[in-house]
Amino acid sequence: MEHYTERAARIMRRIEELAAISEDAQGITRRFGTPAFLQGSALVRSWMEASGLATRIDSIGNVRGRLVSQNPVAKTFVLASHIDTVVNAGKYDGPLGVLLGLDMLEHLMAQQVALPFHIELIAFSDEEGVRFHTTYLGSKVVAGSFDAGLLNRLDAHDISLADAITTIGGHPGHLTTDAIPAEDWLGYFEVHIEQGPVLWERQIPVALVAAIAGQQRVELTWRGMAGHAGTVPMELRQDALAGAAEFLLAVEQFGQTYKHVLVATVGKLEVRNAASNVIPGEVVCSLDMRSADAARLQVAYEELRNLTAAVAARRGLELDWNLIQYTAPVSCDAKLNNLLAQAITETGHEVVSLVSGAGHDAVPISAVAPATMLFVRCYKGISHNPLERVELPDLAATLPVTDRFLSLLIASY
Amino acid sequence: MEHYTERAARIMRRIEELAAISEDAQGITRRFGTPAFLQGSALVRSWMEASGLATRIDSIGNVRGRLVSQNPVAKTFVLASHIDTVVNAGKYDGPLGVLLGLDMLEHLMAQQVALPFHIELIAFSDEEGVRFHTTYLGSKVVAGSFDAGLLNRLDAHDISLADAITTIGGHPGHLTTDAIPAEDWLGYFEVHIEQGPVLWERQIPVALVAAIAGQQRVELTWRGMAGHAGTVPMELRQDALAGAAEFLLAVEQFGQTYKHVLVATVGKLEVRNAASNVIPGEVVCSLDMRSADAARLQVAYEELRNLTAAVAARRGLELDWNLIQYTAPVSCDAKLNNLLAQAITETGHEVVSLVSGAGHDAVPISAVAPATMLFVRCYKGISHNPLERVELPDLAATLPVTDRFLSLLIASY
Repeated sequence: MEHYTERAARIMRRIEELAAISEDAQGITRRFGTPAFLQGSALVRSWMEASGLATRIDSIGNVRGRLVSQNPVAKTFVLASHIDTVVNAGKYDGPLGVLLGLDMLEHLMAQQVALPFHIELIAFSDEEGVRFHTTYLGSKVVAGSFDAGLLNRLDAHDISLADAITTIGGHPGHLTTDAIPAEDWLGYFEVHIEQGPVLWERQIPVALVAAIAGQQRVELTWRGMAGHAGTVPMELRQDALAGAAEFLLAVEQFGQTYKHVLVATVGKLEVRNAASNVIPGEVVCSLDMRSADAARLQVAYEELRNLTAAVAARRGLELDWNLIQYTAPVSCDAKLNNLLAQAITETGHEVVSLVSGAGHDAVPISAVAPATMLFVRCYKGISHNPLERVELPDLAATLPVTDRFLSLLIASY
Repeated sequence: MEHYTERAARIMRRIEELAAISEDAQGITRRFGTPAFLQGSALVRSWMEASGLATRIDSIGNVRGRLVSQNPVAKTFVLASHIDTVVNAGKYDGPLGVLLGLDMLEHLMAQQVALPFHIELIAFSDEEGVRFHTTYLGSKVVAGSFDAGLLNRLDAHDISLADAITTIGGHPGHLTTDAIPAEDWLGYFEVHIEQGPVLWERQIPVALVAAIAGQQRVELTWRGMAGHAGTVPMELRQDALAGAAEFLLAVEQFGQTYKHVLVATVGKLEVRNAASNVIPGEVVCSLDMRSADAARLQVAYEELRNLTAAVAARRGLELDWNLIQYTAPVSCDAKLNNLLAQAITETGHEVVSLVSGAGHDAVPISAVAPATMLFVRCYKGISHNPLERVELPDLAATLPVTDRFLSLLIASY
């Protein structure tokens, strides 16, 4: 166990060193294409290089390190996560998976195992999508699903994505050549912090990810009749906020009833022309629903829509219901998950199977390759926050699981 | 009836003429102390003067017209309302009472009745308090309750109230001398649009005002735990917005249960750091409760506070409850109301007795004199809005009531 603690401590030191590189002095911010991002990428590449991987930076800025098999018909297995961050981020969201992956490969190389397949470690350049309001730029290039239409998109300073790519030494014209061809993929494995409180509550270090939830995002507008809070009797009111409140509690109740298959959240609610002495005439709010089960998500959507229409009708309110976003759920690969479950069991842990409510690079990759993920417990489930933290013992407990997973994968080939 | 229609039409013409004077070309805005305000005051004074009243403009800018009694021990009865407006106001809120009062006095003078008391018609200079965020500047000077501490208060352009008073030709140092001494008051009568929908719904032109509601204004802050909408399971959430929604529906239910004695409104609700994919961690909202019954208002306040604390405790939310404002209810004078009820009955209308949920100049006056009010129906209850409207037949139906009231008052003296 001491061995794993030492490896975990080295991973932690690398995470700290990478976290010290930031756009601002106070927090941790490395948005795609910024000088801090470039400095971070160079550091990660130098570690990969020092470990003996064949490294390169591809046309979208992904840092890629390859361990080559002697097998003439070898396919490629990818270990990856991302190294860009949100604004004022934590240290672990992304870098944990990259630097734990690097440690896995260092350990593998030290064992001098003959590889039946190539292994590529990738530090994706843009998962958070903060700068260009996109998602998965790095992993979409590797999956071959990058949308060239995005190249004209502008950041807050009117710099296009194409120009940003050129500035970091990338090549907007070569993006398609950096994809791993569909026939070359063996599979994909990503380690990531949970970003939720389940493992923290259950006091278990790791969980297998069974699926990544699909998402429906709705914007609702409620229109009643604004009026004077002192002069309109209760029975003559058409209070848009009261309607929205009834909707909100119905969403919460709905989420609790179906808590094993979905989550439902009203995160935004705005009263137009609000004043304490005015009965609200118009309210805009959001609905975010996520589930691993596409059929269940669709049924839930219809049920909540009908329930909401009934609330509006009973209260004499006008209602606009607009679907803003739909993302289909992604199931992780069953065969990879069986190996992962075996590795978890053999290292002495209970197999907890979670649905990821947040999106990950595994989503675009799963369209072209078998993919799975392992979640590592994080402090109180806090993420996208300087308080984000992984405990050293949890990281030390993760390493035998990931080592064993890789051994099982090699043995199974 | 044709007589009354003609008088009503003349009042309407004056209301239109006054409404044409505005700070801006589009709407109707005459805030205290502005050139438009001064022009409006001068017009009202010219009408009073032409009618034969002894006029003056007092030190706070109130336009005052007096009809003097020959009785050596005569007291003063005041007819009044205000001629300042909110921004983008209607035509009737304020001016109706002043110009209907002027018509009452013209009609009285035409009858050459010997007056047992003085009558003073006052167009108050500032009731809305838009410019200095104050209330009742004009009527407080007449009631002798003006707070000299307000003279240093600044408007949005850093002009003090004292300077604004000087600019319109008033005298900040003479404000106390313009009060009607307590022993000289006989009573106060104000005609005003209802600013609510009760008369509109019941299709009745006028209502007696039994009381002006007291008000409690509370600001509540709900604190839970912000979290990712996708990764925090329903049962581990502390959703501040869901707590606020439960409170909001409880307030609505509470208001409906006690609808005959109070109104309760949540007009403002703000989610801090809101995003559709974030479980709300902090919500600030308002509570506005009004009732004519001070004891009932206090009991309601305590009941809602306890109920709210229970919601917060059950949900594991922190709650701040801050009383921001308390205004005591004001009862209108029973003797004047009896005369007013008699006048309404004798002119063939049902006596509807309302509680005013909005404040009026009658509030400060009632501290020194018997006061009452008559409400006139307005279109759909809409006020503080260019759509604010009084129908000509309603105004024609009001005149015999107010004439009769004045006759009964004179006869009763």
